[in-house]
Amino acid sequence: MKNVGIVGFRGYSGAELVRILARHHGVRVLLLEHRADPDDRPRPRGHAGPARIPCTAEEVKTHKLAAVFLATPPEVSMELAPGFLGAGAKVIDLSGAYRLRTPENYQRWYKAEHHQADLLAEAAYGLPEFHRARIAGARLVSNPGCYPTAANLAIQPFVQAGVADRQAGIVCDAKSGTSGAGRKPSLKTSFCEVTGNFSAYSLLDHRHVPEVLQNSGLEEGEFSFVAHLLPVDRGILETIYFRATGIKTGDELVAICEERYRGEPFVRIYDHGKLPDLRAVERTNYCDIGIRYDASTGRAVVVSAIDNLVKGAAGQAVQNMNLILGFKETEGLL
Amino acid sequence: MKNVGIVGFRGYSGAELVRILARHHGVRVLLLEHRADPDDRPRPRGHAGPARIPCTAEEVKTHKLAAVFLATPPEVSMELAPGFLGAGAKVIDLSGAYRLRTPENYQRWYKAEHHQADLLAEAAYGLPEFHRARIAGARLVSNPGCYPTAANLAIQPFVQAGVADRQAGIVCDAKSGTSGAGRKPSLKTSFCEVTGNFSAYSLLDHRHVPEVLQNSGLEEGEFSFVAHLLPVDRGILETIYFRATGIKTGDELVAICEERYRGEPFVRIYDHGKLPDLRAVERTNYCDIGIRYDASTGRAVVVSAIDNLVKGAAGQAVQNMNLILGFKETEGLL
Amino acid sequence: MKNVGIVGFRGYSGAELVRILARHHGVRVLLLEHRADPDDRPRPRGHAGPARIPCTAEEVKTHKLAAVFLATPPEVSMELAPGFLGAGAKVIDLSGAYRLRTPENYQRWYKAEHHQADLLAEAAYGLPEFHRARIAGARLVSNPGCYPTAANLAIQPFVQAGVADRQAGIVCDAKSGTSGAGRKPSLKTSFCEVTGNFSAYSLLDHRHVPEVLQNSGLEEGEFSFVAHLLPVDRGILETIYFRATGIKTGDELVAICEERYRGEPFVRIYDHGKLPDLRAVERTNYCDIGIRYDASTGRAVVVSAIDNLVKGAAGQAVQNMNLILGFKETEGLL
Amino acid sequence: MKNVGIVGFRGYSGAELVRILARHHGVRVLLLEHRADPDDRPRPRGHAGPARIPCTAEEVKTHKLAAVFLATPPEVSMELAPGFLGAGAKVIDLSGAYRLRTPENYQRWYKAEHHQADLLAEAAYGLPEFHRARIAGARLVSNPGCYPTAANLAIQPFVQAGVADRQAGIVCDAKSGTSGAGRKPSLKTSFCEVTGNFSAYSLLDHRHVPEVLQNSGLEEGEFSFVAHLLPVDRGILETIYFRATGIKTGDELVAICEERYRGEPFVRIYDHGKLPDLRAVERTNYCDIGIRYDASTGRAVVVSAIDNLVKGAAGQAVQNMNLILGFKETEGLL
Repeated sequence: MKNVGIVGFRGYSGAELVRILARHHGVRVLLLEHRADPDDRPRPRGHAGPARIPCTAEEVKTHKLAAVFLATPPEVSMELAPGFLGAGAKVIDLSGAYRLRTPENYQRWYKAEHHQADLLAEAAYGLPEFHRARIAGARLVSNPGCYPTAANLAIQPFVQAGVADRQAGIVCDAKSGTSGAGRKPSLKTSFCEVTGNFSAYSLLDHRHVPEVLQNSGLEEGEFSFVAHLLPVDRGILETIYFRATGIKTGDELVAICEERYRGEPFVRIYDHGKLPDLRAVERTNYCDIGIRYDASTGRAVVVSAIDNLVKGAAGQAVQNMNLILGFKETEGLL
Repeated sequence: MKNVGIVGFRGYSGAELVRILARHHGVRVLLLEHRADPDDRPRPRGHAGPARIPCTAEEVKTHKLAAVFLATPPEVSMELAPGFLGAGAKVIDLSGAYRLRTPENYQRWYKAEHHQADLLAEAAYGLPEFHRARIAGARLVSNPGCYPTAANLAIQPFVQAGVADRQAGIVCDAKSGTSGAGRKPSLKTSFCEVTGNFSAYSLLDHRHVPEVLQNSGLEEGEFSFVAHLLPVDRGILETIYFRATGIKTGDELVAICEERYRGEPFVRIYDHGKLPDLRAVERTNYCDIGIRYDASTGRAVVVSAIDNLVKGAAGQAVQNMNLILGFKETEGLL
Repeated sequence: MKNVGIVGFRGYSGAELVRILARHHGVRVLLLEHRADPDDRPRPRGHAGPARIPCTAEEVKTHKLAAVFLATPPEVSMELAPGFLGAGAKVIDLSGAYRLRTPENYQRWYKAEHHQADLLAEAAYGLPEFHRARIAGARLVSNPGCYPTAANLAIQPFVQAGVADRQAGIVCDAKSGTSGAGRKPSLKTSFCEVTGNFSAYSLLDHRHVPEVLQNSGLEEGEFSFVAHLLPVDRGILETIYFRATGIKTGDELVAICEERYRGEPFVRIYDHGKLPDLRAVERTNYCDIGIRYDASTGRAVVVSAIDNLVKGAAGQAVQNMNLILGFKETEGLL
Repeated sequence: MKNVGIVGFRGYSGAELVRILARHHGVRVLLLEHRADPDDRPRPRGHAGPARIPCTAEEVKTHKLAAVFLATPPEVSMELAPGFLGAGAKVIDLSGAYRLRTPENYQRWYKAEHHQADLLAEAAYGLPEFHRARIAGARLVSNPGCYPTAANLAIQPFVQAGVADRQAGIVCDAKSGTSGAGRKPSLKTSFCEVTGNFSAYSLLDHRHVPEVLQNSGLEEGEFSFVAHLLPVDRGILETIYFRATGIKTGDELVAICEERYRGEPFVRIYDHGKLPDLRAVERTNYCDIGIRYDASTGRAVVVSAIDNLVKGAAGQAVQNMNLILGFKETEGLL
């Protein structure tokens, strides 16, 4: 039984971590109280939840935390990660703080300076289907963004196989549930603004874009990404368009994808023409992928779906924890 | 053509006023800019909306505003109303500032002092079905709360007719859409907290309770009121329970209600056993009332429905404006 | 490892049974295919789900099913239960077929004849908090209705303790998510009719009423029940009003409730004035109970919340299965 | 005052026609009762709605209907249109029956035969911004599909101006509210399936595709269209991607669009980078268009939004009626 900590447990990703880890047989959870927050929900008598401790490196050391999850904004992650690493814990950061490889790239997309170039270089990008070995040996894992998780898993097999016409461009039309925007109240995510509504945002300049470019090797001009806000609590569905070259049938595209993910516990492929929806992956750590190909014109459409709080955040973070702490990769996640 | 002003036009009630008055043939709207607010929605080119002016008594005088709507919090209404009245405008206040008759009662329910006892005494309570004549001659109209509008219209005919057993008590289980909580962002009204959820609040001590007592003559112990937050944008439905005495059939209760509201343009009654839902009154100024009576045990249930932003706020405010400015009562509202 | 079967696995309660039992360590699930149904959702390649067998008594015998869940309409349950019992299986029926004790009562509330008076008399009413011993020894368990589960658990402690004024009457204002109406398409439960809407139905004559009378000993005239349809997927919240006699503080009511449910794994009580909402019990087998008491007038309000598909259906059915098959009562449910 | 009829008034488009025409100063509405339907909502006493007459050509003649709206499935429209035209009425068909120009094309996309080649050739395609003159003189107007209305208005200015790179392909990712699927109950549109969910359907082969090809002159291989089902009642938002050639700034694209629609009452353009959402057009007859251009790579994104029941159905039908009956084009629609 290993102790692990969670900072930011009141946020949606943090609360999901608490829920998932309650089913994990190898860890005991401690909540690191980073700031007082009056918004705790009422709890039934006798059901207090995991113990809370102060959010300091000393406590991390005292409680021998094997790993700490940072479900915090990037600036808080940057503030906490070095000390926790110094205290001997592995760190799994769910923010964008360590996802890009250089301070320059961070500056461009996050509009802020980054003073920990060494940690940027050291951090493993926590997409196990692509970087499993590296994650297993890492001290610091940067958990991927929710949009890039669904995008990278759906696009990469076809880019890698050389069947996607990069010059014609790949379009990724992404839709996310509102929990992706976090728990902090704002007009944009208030009920009356979101319900019965639907909107596009961050056209071509979402800060998750560089995570896709970095992993796929696509150029910025080859990849068009638009985010949309769905009037649902959780879930991401991305509809991806490209021209396929050298492909005769939809089944060939399905086979490329299936081959790529053979043995992967959390990627599921559908028969040609069959599609996942948000419900298919709700509260699961799966990324589901469906494909539709029009052979007469070479147009391909790939639909990928994840739960943004699970495979897009807390679930993938636990998957990464399982890798770095030596648990079975699926523990707590099936 | 008379000029009228709106303070608080960015809030949900204020925006609804703008929408309704755009269809009114007798008034021109000016928006009184009380505070800078960065949250304005983008507007299409060439569609600027009504003109904006500073929110001062001088401007009210300069523009000869016949009436000003205050869609503001109570403390702002108290700050603005005296000056606007002094500038010669009628004032229709949508807040709770002038709904109760004494500073003592205000202190008890609003937990704040009230220093304008004279205006409390002067203000007409803007429920036209009960106080039409008084409203028509008033300088200051206090627009009723959304919950009390639906409750008073549904309860009063039976209390007045003496058929409701007051001693056994009247229960009013009220459910409201989220716009009733206003547009200011808060965790309680954020999308992820409200969607897929439902909750009770202000059990027995909602500040709208005294408006019902004041109008119906019921004692506090005779009237149990609980508010609930619905995962819908707009609408209020109240389910009201009482014991009826001296009543043989449901049709008798329907007849009492119908008789009471004969000629009223905005109250609609259903056949016994038929019920309104929120959709029946959505975006209308109607209060719809359905009744179910179990003759064998004397139990009566009344269901009343309004749109909280129309009959529960902006629509009723325009109805009141029509009365005090001498327009047809239904102008702009059908 | 025991085999158990599910009939009606495509419905919402049946699908929830499949989900819950996938986490149960003592049983293997078989799906009994009662009718072909083209509405199965697409499944990812390699994820077929539990095996399917024909829905006959022979198959029940062949596969040595220790228990069969009937997540079916009452008439189907009546058709299947006798044969399955004859084949040696325990039967847990989620329909209303065996909830009332006599054919006469069934006729009154279900408007249909009942020809199995013996099974009506034999069936155990599957509310473990009230009938645990009887359930454990039963062949046939009638799983309670969703509304009565929340109502009985909330009302009974106070009726039993004699502190609820029965003569003044108890009001139960109940609100349910749409899954309570089943998966069969109908206009009343279609998205455009339900979203943004809210409605009352079955005023004073819902067929779940007799389950409350039967368990609480209340007379029909003492208990007023109205059901409402919430625009949410799942969850029931009931707001219950009564006059308390001989009670000085809210804490006394909390204590009565807590005492009654001491040691119960699935009933949780809140501090006086604190309340559960639907989210508190979503996808759990808990019934959460909050209380508010106004000592000056004797008015009490109790709010109880369950997930209608879990404690209100599939979860409670598994709890009952655990009792009759000798598993730990909470297995698969925490 | 002219008489006009509505067939299919219980459907969502038909009900919207009733609502819109209630505000029209030039027509009186009669409802043509095509089939008995038990699903009428309860109506308050004394509010019966428009008169109902049998659905026959004789009645059309007797009541001198100047125009009849067919808010019916294509096969019903084909059955009724010839007789109503023969009875002297103009016909505005909201189905897909007369949108394509040849029986062959109809056969391909609607998988059914079409025996009225003459009417296919005669029908005016009711998109006033493109075919105003032809509509004004037509006997039979085929009201456009909801998706093609938003797509054609957004795409055509750029195709026509020759700035969209057709070879690279135009992607139209379209999302629609559930009312677009009609009022007939089905599992796919039932509340529990749609709420909290989001799904793609009809990938590359939606039957609305040929309406876009027919109007824009694009080849099938140049236009990729995927439809999605939003968990909202009403509204369509389409995100359209293309490569622009010869364009230096986003303002140039805005100017092309604005120039094309100068004077159009129902198309609104936003400043570069500003976008409409569903709320911007809810319950209006507007099509709102926003544009985002990345000059460094030539990628353009256009977002267009309509209310599928208004500009996408009933509102546009009334706009067409105004044209063919000689009313002001905006009558009843602002």
